[in-house]
Amino acid sequence: MEKELIYALEIIGTFVFAVSGVSTAASKKFDILGVVIIAFVTAIGGGTLRDVMIGVQPVSWMLDLNYIYTIILAVIMSFFFLPYLLKLRKTLFLFDAIGLGLFTILGLEKALAIGLSPVVAIMMGTVSAVFGGVLRDILCNTVPLIFSGRIYASNCIAGGIVYLILITNGVDKNLTMLFTVSLIIILRVLAVRRNWSLPAIKWDGNH
Amino acid sequence: MEKELIYALEIIGTFVFAVSGVSTAASKKFDILGVVIIAFVTAIGGGTLRDVMIGVQPVSWMLDLNYIYTIILAVIMSFFFLPYLLKLRKTLFLFDAIGLGLFTILGLEKALAIGLSPVVAIMMGTVSAVFGGVLRDILCNTVPLIFSGRIYASNCIAGGIVYLILITNGVDKNLTMLFTVSLIIILRVLAVRRNWSLPAIKWDGNH
Amino acid sequence: MEKELIYALEIIGTFVFAVSGVSTAASKKFDILGVVIIAFVTAIGGGTLRDVMIGVQPVSWMLDLNYIYTIILAVIMSFFFLPYLLKLRKTLFLFDAIGLGLFTILGLEKALAIGLSPVVAIMMGTVSAVFGGVLRDILCNTVPLIFSGRIYASNCIAGGIVYLILITNGVDKNLTMLFTVSLIIILRVLAVRRNWSLPAIKWDGNH
Repeated sequence: MEKELIYALEIIGTFVFAVSGVSTAASKKFDILGVVIIAFVTAIGGGTLRDVMIGVQPVSWMLDLNYIYTIILAVIMSFFFLPYLLKLRKTLFLFDAIGLGLFTILGLEKALAIGLSPVVAIMMGTVSAVFGGVLRDILCNTVPLIFSGRIYASNCIAGGIVYLILITNGVDKNLTMLFTVSLIIILRVLAVRRNWSLPAIKWDGNH
Repeated sequence: MEKELIYALEIIGTFVFAVSGVSTAASKKFDILGVVIIAFVTAIGGGTLRDVMIGVQPVSWMLDLNYIYTIILAVIMSFFFLPYLLKLRKTLFLFDAIGLGLFTILGLEKALAIGLSPVVAIMMGTVSAVFGGVLRDILCNTVPLIFSGRIYASNCIAGGIVYLILITNGVDKNLTMLFTVSLIIILRVLAVRRNWSLPAIKWDGNH
Repeated sequence: MEKELIYALEIIGTFVFAVSGVSTAASKKFDILGVVIIAFVTAIGGGTLRDVMIGVQPVSWMLDLNYIYTIILAVIMSFFFLPYLLKLRKTLFLFDAIGLGLFTILGLEKALAIGLSPVVAIMMGTVSAVFGGVLRDILCNTVPLIFSGRIYASNCIAGGIVYLILITNGVDKNLTMLFTVSLIIILRVLAVRRNWSLPAIKWDGNH
């Protein structure tokens, strides 16, 4: 049951990241194919970067067409529901948080599985969750959202640390996964609701 | 003969993509080395990204110096003919379209050869043809041209689909290749001549 | 002794590139994690890109945590000494030049070691030394510094060529390494001091 659950959640994460890509690209007045490309980059960019860095090639989404179909479905549904997307934004944001939580833990597991150290695994989990959005922002030529002062990648790191502590202390893996994914989601929701931010660095002087 | 023809056309494609990089970089007032770097990125960036994602490493241009020599030759010739480049732009654009057609089909073939599915192969063909230009635009800090509303990547996808249909139905490979490369080139030329564009997405609301 | 020296210098290079990343990110008012991410990208981005292109995976910094610890230490120290960083800029710049020299030669050696040709090896050395900064600038959404007209990557190429000439002519490897790293550093210092620049390309006409 564990595998089916993970797979289902992974597909959901792909779906919502793709929708998030559509929103960004549509607001930039890209044409339809541009929107599709941005949806793909947002949904699979983080996992692709992780796979390439740790040496999993062909990158994993290439070997299971369901990821591609999910993204295309997300784009089509976004077109039909575009007027409602704005109102749905709170729900969407929740799904995006789910993707964030899930991709972090899945990416972390992948890195551990090929024998990388816990510190590197946390980094790879964070890269999986966060860099799809970073690549999206680079292609749209804006300063990546993760640098905008809102708590974002920190949730992934925090969740990853808790995951490793629990696993190391013998807590059941399914339980740990469920707990830490939820933790990342809840932290993300609280961060946005309460406007949490990390302190910005003040740099005195002219640059 | 097939291999020699492909190789010759691949070198021509590399050449014209490099020239296209020189034009962009020169208009940004980069120094000579900056121009050379942009020429390289434009000419080999798409193929490099494809190779890294599908796991062909060292990436293919590293194993045949003719690609590097071709790019350097393209840069040198661009310097000598810079005043004429503007007037030649129509010819250049035609060569760029040739590169687009060829790199799409070659990239698609490479992906099929390592056993990837047709859908992924079309994507990799398009990445080969288009992402050199995307990387060039990112380095020059402009919104990538492919998102500007002009038909560009769609030609590659259309050509890739036709290629797969013909091959699957037993049409001769050389003929199919010749036909689909031409198709992509002609579609591109028509798209620019007649100002074809895909519809942009309208997003009602403040973002 | 050769290996220990290289390792020590490599760690120093990582340290100073990380500090250079902190300065850039801090001047952009990123939050603490944003600053850490930029420090990592600046310090290990070039080597990561090189490793991925030549097929060394997992990329090398993942297998030795000292690189990560060094970057974290660099960020912490930067925070404490931020007010002094401006005054230290000349010293920092010297360290950055050291990193440039060292990463060029180390990257070049890595490429030669897996059997790539000298020309490609020089390119990979330059990529190692220069692309961390390029990726940093892309993430900060500015035109990369290497395109700004100051001599930068040219030093790496010059040093790489001299390295290959000396090695080919049987000069002692340690000596060659020491000499060419120093050469790149000195050229870089002179280039900044005396405001050397490569000629920019003039492009007559409207684009």
